[in-house]
Amino acid sequence: MLYLVHMIVNIPATLAPEEAARIKADEKAYSQQLQHAGRWPHLWRVVGEYANYSVFDVDSNDELHDTLSKLPLFPFMKITVTPLAKHPSSIV
Amino acid sequence: MLYLVHMIVNIPATLAPEEAARIKADEKAYSQQLQHAGRWPHLWRVVGEYANYSVFDVDSNDELHDTLSKLPLFPFMKITVTPLAKHPSSIV
Amino acid sequence: MLYLVHMIVNIPATLAPEEAARIKADEKAYSQQLQHAGRWPHLWRVVGEYANYSVFDVDSNDELHDTLSKLPLFPFMKITVTPLAKHPSSIV
Amino acid sequence: MLYLVHMIVNIPATLAPEEAARIKADEKAYSQQLQHAGRWPHLWRVVGEYANYSVFDVDSNDELHDTLSKLPLFPFMKITVTPLAKHPSSIV
Amino acid sequence: MLYLVHMIVNIPATLAPEEAARIKADEKAYSQQLQHAGRWPHLWRVVGEYANYSVFDVDSNDELHDTLSKLPLFPFMKITVTPLAKHPSSIV
Amino acid sequence: MLYLVHMIVNIPATLAPEEAARIKADEKAYSQQLQHAGRWPHLWRVVGEYANYSVFDVDSNDELHDTLSKLPLFPFMKITVTPLAKHPSSIV
Amino acid sequence: MLYLVHMIVNIPATLAPEEAARIKADEKAYSQQLQHAGRWPHLWRVVGEYANYSVFDVDSNDELHDTLSKLPLFPFMKITVTPLAKHPSSIV
Amino acid sequence: MLYLVHMIVNIPATLAPEEAARIKADEKAYSQQLQHAGRWPHLWRVVGEYANYSVFDVDSNDELHDTLSKLPLFPFMKITVTPLAKHPSSIV
Amino acid sequence: MLYLVHMIVNIPATLAPEEAARIKADEKAYSQQLQHAGRWPHLWRVVGEYANYSVFDVDSNDELHDTLSKLPLFPFMKITVTPLAKHPSSIV
Amino acid sequence: MLYLVHMIVNIPATLAPEEAARIKADEKAYSQQLQHAGRWPHLWRVVGEYANYSVFDVDSNDELHDTLSKLPLFPFMKITVTPLAKHPSSIV
Repeated sequence: MLYLVHMIVNIPATLAPEEAARIKADEKAYSQQLQHAGRWPHLWRVVGEYANYSVFDVDSNDELHDTLSKLPLFPFMKITVTPLAKHPSSIV
Repeated sequence: MLYLVHMIVNIPATLAPEEAARIKADEKAYSQQLQHAGRWPHLWRVVGEYANYSVFDVDSNDELHDTLSKLPLFPFMKITVTPLAKHPSSIV
Repeated sequence: MLYLVHMIVNIPATLAPEEAARIKADEKAYSQQLQHAGRWPHLWRVVGEYANYSVFDVDSNDELHDTLSKLPLFPFMKITVTPLAKHPSSIV
Repeated sequence: MLYLVHMIVNIPATLAPEEAARIKADEKAYSQQLQHAGRWPHLWRVVGEYANYSVFDVDSNDELHDTLSKLPLFPFMKITVTPLAKHPSSIV
Repeated sequence: MLYLVHMIVNIPATLAPEEAARIKADEKAYSQQLQHAGRWPHLWRVVGEYANYSVFDVDSNDELHDTLSKLPLFPFMKITVTPLAKHPSSIV
Repeated sequence: MLYLVHMIVNIPATLAPEEAARIKADEKAYSQQLQHAGRWPHLWRVVGEYANYSVFDVDSNDELHDTLSKLPLFPFMKITVTPLAKHPSSIV
Repeated sequence: MLYLVHMIVNIPATLAPEEAARIKADEKAYSQQLQHAGRWPHLWRVVGEYANYSVFDVDSNDELHDTLSKLPLFPFMKITVTPLAKHPSSIV
Repeated sequence: MLYLVHMIVNIPATLAPEEAARIKADEKAYSQQLQHAGRWPHLWRVVGEYANYSVFDVDSNDELHDTLSKLPLFPFMKITVTPLAKHPSSIV
Repeated sequence: MLYLVHMIVNIPATLAPEEAARIKADEKAYSQQLQHAGRWPHLWRVVGEYANYSVFDVDSNDELHDTLSKLPLFPFMKITVTPLAKHPSSIV
Repeated sequence: MLYLVHMIVNIPATLAPEEAARIKADEKAYSQQLQHAGRWPHLWRVVGEYANYSVFDVDSNDELHDTLSKLPLFPFMKITVTPLAKHPSSIV
């Protein structure tokens, strides 16, 4: 089941640089693990912004919230979720 | 080169039903031709709305505008385009 | 799986009154059938508006879109869907 | 009498973690007491956000404000209240 | 129980002038009947707009929706309802 | 001459609690003095928010600004002013 | 007493051109009469828009609403009113 | 003196196609005459929209309004004007 | 050449009171010098807000930006500029 | 390939003035290097704001994001990107 997820990152200036670097590394590792598992099939950077559009493929709303809330950057992101359905003109 | 495209369809009640049906059929055919050509790799319905989120893969801004402005439903849609870039954490 | 759905109804003045009455009667029948089936567990009127907040309980995004797009008033509504998850403080 | 209540939580980074933990524990206890009393019949997490949609069942506007303003997280939340009425198509 | 109600009137140009005049006369009569009954204690014109801010004093959300939806101008108004509570600094 | 005034209070966490308490006490005293003088005839709490809707009855725009800018909480409030006129359907 | 008034004009295409021309001529005459009387001291066109920013100098909110609602273009305008006060740095 | 101008075109379905075609041809001729005269140095299509971003080079606000209000499509456009100044880092 | 300028002041609580007082005094002096020179013909307080609406009379966009960016409060203001043109109904 | 880019700068008061000055100098140098290379053909100040509108000429979305994310002021800017296409009426 697919969802379009928009994430805007906003790391406060008060966060120590090493701490920020550690969180970003954790985020990358967690993200790639989900991508390899097929749960996060698309991850694109929004041009000019510290933001991304992603597509998640999960079994339920609960699984999606569980997945997103475990993102190391979760406390520093504004996330918007749009549920997607099959389009009648899609050839997939 | 990828772009996220959001399309909201709003067909006026004054359009004759047969005309609307013809335009929608043309739209479907045109859309599927672009999908088969690899120019429109993703097409998803937004749940609960007469709208879609799509990803286009084209060579330039000009090609994208040319492609979108030829959509049979173009005069009846509000379209928003977001250019996408490779994300540093993406495994693709 | 639960979703909060906000529906704003806007029937154009150009729709014949009998036609509008027929559509509303169909909407009521369809809505009550879904309520009895447990798919539409909550339906509330927004005070002062021709709008409602509803909760749907369905198996997937596709089922929700299929259900909503079959609403007889669908062409005359602006619908917004918010996916819901279990809250850690909920006793249910 | 029912109200839909939307709460967005925003705990400032300047709040000490232990203090934040204590407030959240108090919030959970207070919330569950109101749920058991039938005053807070529904509490759902918004997927991807530190936010909830809730339904309250109280006797008056004054009781609702009194209840909400006593939430331990009240100083850290943006709350929006929508009064609900019985829907003519509801089977309840 | 008090509610602040904001009403913006928008009568379509397609409505026949006599019909519009009749609806406005009905609205005035209905409004004054509710004012005399103490249900609509305040009714103010917003300067420069075909709009008003009103205060209603009713027993429940249901009564308020019932009252507002019977306004002869209801189909031509955008209404927003804000529930009010006693303010701790109020001398009333 | 009447004005609807909407005030949203936002006291920064950096303000010392005793200082905040003193300002709130001053605000209450000042508010009640204006209410007794008939300048602030209505003061209502917005349910669920640290905000109020008020009606002021003053002789001029200048008097209103002078009155509002002397509120002890003025530096911590977002204020919106809507001038009101007599409504032709009002019985007052 | 001064007010900044923003007017956006939107004449529907369904209005007969001669009728529109007559209303605009009436508007101009009425506007110039108020300007000569000192009630409408400033009238500026917003560059690129069928809109104006104006300053009115009247004795009360009621007089302003009375004046604005008599504008021949009133039914075709969106009007926003901002009450103005003397600025402490103004040399006037 | 430069201004960034954003134009969104919205031709109503009620306009006869030949009339619309004639207006668009006039618009193109008028636009190219201004471009050749150096008054409209940049004209770009917004990808996916019936809209453009333009830069005008004129001597005054009055000249810009005069120029824009003579656009044959002026009655069918929403125009927003942003005055531009020399940037201290610009090499031009 | 006239421009309507809207300025919203927001002085951060972290600025030392004496520093803030000095900046405000500088702002007042600079403002009055521009008023005496005829460059800032109107300066009005927005009722209830720490904001003003002003009219500037300058020779170019560059002069306006130069003038505004030298305001001592410039770093603490949100400024919006609207270019104005002569209105065909204005008697001035 | 052209893009309109809107940048709003917001340097936090907590940044040391020398650090801010160094970043601005780096920004200017980097900007002028890109202008000389033809990648940043237009750079205009928005009158009254610490913001600019720019036009970039790059080969791809990826190049644009790479270019923008290397701006020394990138962490302190809100950037919005609008892809541009050739306009059919443009003489260029």
